[in-house]
Amino acid sequence: MRDEPLDVVGIGNAIVDVLAQASEAYVTEQELPKGSMTLIDMNRAESLYASMGPAVEVSGGSCANTMAGLASLGGRGGFIGKVRNDQLGGIFRHDIRATGIEFATPPATEGPPTARCLILVTPDAQRTMATYLGISVQLGPEEVDHELIRRARVLYLEGYLWDSPAAKQAFLEAAETARAAGAKVALSLSDPFCVDRHRDSFRELVHGHVDLLFANEAEIVSLYQADDFDAALQQVRGHCEVAALTRSEKGSVVLSGEEVHLIDAIRVGELLDTTGAGDLYAAGFLYGYTRGRSLHDCGRLGSLAAGEAISHLGPRPARPLTELAARHGL
Amino acid sequence: MRDEPLDVVGIGNAIVDVLAQASEAYVTEQELPKGSMTLIDMNRAESLYASMGPAVEVSGGSCANTMAGLASLGGRGGFIGKVRNDQLGGIFRHDIRATGIEFATPPATEGPPTARCLILVTPDAQRTMATYLGISVQLGPEEVDHELIRRARVLYLEGYLWDSPAAKQAFLEAAETARAAGAKVALSLSDPFCVDRHRDSFRELVHGHVDLLFANEAEIVSLYQADDFDAALQQVRGHCEVAALTRSEKGSVVLSGEEVHLIDAIRVGELLDTTGAGDLYAAGFLYGYTRGRSLHDCGRLGSLAAGEAISHLGPRPARPLTELAARHGL
Repeated sequence: MRDEPLDVVGIGNAIVDVLAQASEAYVTEQELPKGSMTLIDMNRAESLYASMGPAVEVSGGSCANTMAGLASLGGRGGFIGKVRNDQLGGIFRHDIRATGIEFATPPATEGPPTARCLILVTPDAQRTMATYLGISVQLGPEEVDHELIRRARVLYLEGYLWDSPAAKQAFLEAAETARAAGAKVALSLSDPFCVDRHRDSFRELVHGHVDLLFANEAEIVSLYQADDFDAALQQVRGHCEVAALTRSEKGSVVLSGEEVHLIDAIRVGELLDTTGAGDLYAAGFLYGYTRGRSLHDCGRLGSLAAGEAISHLGPRPARPLTELAARHGL
Repeated sequence: MRDEPLDVVGIGNAIVDVLAQASEAYVTEQELPKGSMTLIDMNRAESLYASMGPAVEVSGGSCANTMAGLASLGGRGGFIGKVRNDQLGGIFRHDIRATGIEFATPPATEGPPTARCLILVTPDAQRTMATYLGISVQLGPEEVDHELIRRARVLYLEGYLWDSPAAKQAFLEAAETARAAGAKVALSLSDPFCVDRHRDSFRELVHGHVDLLFANEAEIVSLYQADDFDAALQQVRGHCEVAALTRSEKGSVVLSGEEVHLIDAIRVGELLDTTGAGDLYAAGFLYGYTRGRSLHDCGRLGSLAAGEAISHLGPRPARPLTELAARHGL
């Protein structure tokens, strides 16, 4: 078990999501940029939580969601991220392991509590996120399990890590190990505001150190401060081996050298909550990629997993993605 | 605010539900009686949790679910129940207050953790529950807020309280206050195994101290050790002012003196998870009852609220019941 090869090892913030329905007016009143992620401190987290409606708690975290999706498709993976030894930490730990993903980062016995992301789902199914990072930002090089990374074909990193200097360092050391072991390095740009905060270093990364890039329209446009999606697409071409750019209901565009694939969105059910859509697109794509599938099929697997994610409340698959993929001939 | 009249004040176990999909085989293997509630200790809770699939956390507790449903219909209520000052306790506290229900029982600063109910939802939408009662059983007479109870038209109690001597005492003292203030006393029998454990005292209660009785088919049959539903129905007639007996997809029977109403089940959507069905039936019924509606309408409101509860994962309303009631002419 402990030395079986893995498809993907991910590093990300270990977060429990707190999801509640909210009106457009409430989101505006709270001055949260709709559809994006805002970092908040503990005080703001408490006051926002106190005024939010009844909520549901589900394990989340962008990269961790991707790993859960990979497992649901039958892929093998590992996750590195930091929780406290508190009740939310126990929930995160249980859920990621219950998917079959290896998760051995020891919980911290002191410091701030486990991270949580307050997610307001508006009637249009859009999610607006306010994250209190808690202990998760204390993830540092000492938590990077190099043995785990050496077993993986792909090391997958979330851009959100860039908000913490220690995690950034962990990210870079992990990438070095992965490259030395012959693995590919994948990055998700995570959020347009996150790109804003770290544009220069993200560009440097994408142009020099990343093999697979995941970004949505707002993120790739922000990365290049481009006028529109097409302009951004021209800029990213050729800079990394593969770029998978998602565009919500317009589907996705997959670029690799001279290859360009336009992949349609796949609707699995009623649109209920977009939380996790991008994370699950990456899950489907990486599953196909690590199995040597065509880029077209990788994109279709991404669309399908994202389609499932948005058909229910919460970011992780509510039904086994293997069955769904089989039903769609994937 | 603090002295406004209330429709219902409830006393019950303050519990956070941990819901996961499970196979029939898993439920059998765990030796849990399907469709019922089993009490478990902390060790069993930990080992069961460790082997369960990825879960969702939602505030629960039978009586607390009823109160949340009442609030969703526009009713005013209060809740008495005990949590610890831990993360699950904070979740319970937030959620019940966010519905608009008054909840002022101070969280315990020591003792066992907040109660949790591990709920396995099988593919047939049935739920099988394993409850670790934690701090909730330490609810005692000292937590009974008599001022709150004096403001209510109905005091609603869950039969589960009978499993703890201190809570039983709290229940009896609360009932006395309610009666002295001219309020009605309502009881839910909660679970057939709970009835088994406390048959004699439940019969005594039902025959002497309870104005409104809520029970499902298995519970009322168990109470009288009757051969079938009809035999149990003949026994309960005349013993309390109103008895509302639920029968899943067969709807419910409401009895009061010579009156008998047969109420059909109301289907609101696809059947996904029966958790909370009985609790929400009581919510709808009590809402109608405290507004002086006919027993027929009370039953219909119960059916509607239960119909909504079983159309999604988790025990509490996922959408405002006022809108749903209006759409059904209620």
